[in-house]
Amino acid sequence: MANIGFIGLGTMGRPMAGHLLAAGHRLFLHNRSPVPEDFVKKGATECASGADVARQAEIIITMLPDTPDVEIVLFGPKGVAEGLTAGKIVVDMSTVSPMATQTFARRISKMGCSYLDAPVSGGEVGAKAAKLTIMVGGESETFELMRPIFELMATNITLVGKNGDGQTAKVANQIIVALTIQAVGEALLFASRAGADPGKVRQALMGGFASSKILEIHGDRMIKRNFEPGFRIELHRKDLNLALEGARKLNLSLPNTAACQELFNSAVAHGGARWEHSGLVQILEVLAHHQIGKQD
Amino acid sequence: MANIGFIGLGTMGRPMAGHLLAAGHRLFLHNRSPVPEDFVKKGATECASGADVARQAEIIITMLPDTPDVEIVLFGPKGVAEGLTAGKIVVDMSTVSPMATQTFARRISKMGCSYLDAPVSGGEVGAKAAKLTIMVGGESETFELMRPIFELMATNITLVGKNGDGQTAKVANQIIVALTIQAVGEALLFASRAGADPGKVRQALMGGFASSKILEIHGDRMIKRNFEPGFRIELHRKDLNLALEGARKLNLSLPNTAACQELFNSAVAHGGARWEHSGLVQILEVLAHHQIGKQD
Repeated sequence: MANIGFIGLGTMGRPMAGHLLAAGHRLFLHNRSPVPEDFVKKGATECASGADVARQAEIIITMLPDTPDVEIVLFGPKGVAEGLTAGKIVVDMSTVSPMATQTFARRISKMGCSYLDAPVSGGEVGAKAAKLTIMVGGESETFELMRPIFELMATNITLVGKNGDGQTAKVANQIIVALTIQAVGEALLFASRAGADPGKVRQALMGGFASSKILEIHGDRMIKRNFEPGFRIELHRKDLNLALEGARKLNLSLPNTAACQELFNSAVAHGGARWEHSGLVQILEVLAHHQIGKQD
Repeated sequence: MANIGFIGLGTMGRPMAGHLLAAGHRLFLHNRSPVPEDFVKKGATECASGADVARQAEIIITMLPDTPDVEIVLFGPKGVAEGLTAGKIVVDMSTVSPMATQTFARRISKMGCSYLDAPVSGGEVGAKAAKLTIMVGGESETFELMRPIFELMATNITLVGKNGDGQTAKVANQIIVALTIQAVGEALLFASRAGADPGKVRQALMGGFASSKILEIHGDRMIKRNFEPGFRIELHRKDLNLALEGARKLNLSLPNTAACQELFNSAVAHGGARWEHSGLVQILEVLAHHQIGKQD
């Protein structure tokens, strides 16, 4: 059993850390708000800072909202870097910038430590069920050391490549998911406005070349008007920002990603920051002045 | 066994009609260019016009390139309508305008005949293997009469709704397929330009929420640079035109469908009319001055 630090006990981090504790690992926790009592009751140690976590644990996992949060927790005052000694492993499971990740990894490596970027997909449901997908960037030796710990949280674990490549894969994932939601939204809206039953259209298309997890699950949400999270628009908007910010730095043109982000912006303007991301279709519906499934 | 007329023996029509002949139906054929000899050798009858086909067959199937072709073959000089008598069935398996289809169906119905719109997906490979998907609009009695004949060509057959709804489902299918190709293209291009291995990224994403038939098959084509048809860009461009023309008539805004069509336009400008539709990614690559899998 290992001494594992876990920083960031939000919607995702809390169930993920819970699995590690349940498996018998010694946990050293730090969080912006106080660490939930049940962790402490079950023997986890609350630490006053990231530096404190890094002094006591051999493996330090971060699960934070965005790039600046990771930078502060790792390298800010009383951050993880202050407590690190050579040979320790830092694993960032947040979804953050691939380019910033390369910098973080270089700085950690210079201290004689190892770094993995290991962002996840699968959302709160996947985190609770320990059925996440993890996309990893870093050295294969470190990856193999971490694999048994990843397996406590995930069913689908891939070493994509070097540091940053895990985050790059996550950005690619978020591009595809967002743009496929929009694809299904435009298609079902066309079908509905043309007078067809969108449920029947979805059914006719499943199993063919248009079939996808998004058509299956989010197509159904659009038809049944179920936009309770699930994964929230404000978070997907943050992730597409990583894509578009990265694209700008790489001089890369991503026309439909950019257009989709504009619809996320509009969704937030309509009070939809906390809508399920398939609720994006409601902005297409605003544009069309037509709701899927309703007669005009 | 029925007397079946089949008009349009192109890439799709030829194998489809072949399955009907092989099952023992009597075929009455008409085509712009002469009917292939092997059909005549196997007992099919070549007819001089659509009217001639309609006089001899009880069921008349059309499989033609575009809306104006269907209109001329049905209602032009020596067209199907001239040879129809009450009680016959007209089945248009072409991919054409849902709105025009509603008009065609009304005109045929007024003659005491039945009309089905029954466009297919699955391409030449699906047609040859008799594994097409058929999306049908029309009366359920007519659909049930036609079902055994459809089953000679397809494995996935759905009655979507009334006349036009089959074509509407096909348009929805083509929107999703095109936009998912672009989604996968933008994602793999981001991954490649950011320095990751796009094949590894694709592998990490399969099985998660980004998974789709398009990521599986066309993502692989993009990585392996295999843009031989498959389904051609010039045909997919025609189908998105049905979507955008329909959207204009319905006052419907489809931003990513419109943007994707602009890339198809550019693909044709680059000599890509006959590229496989996943070759759309090459226009994103032109914009980025970067090819997937190559180091910058």
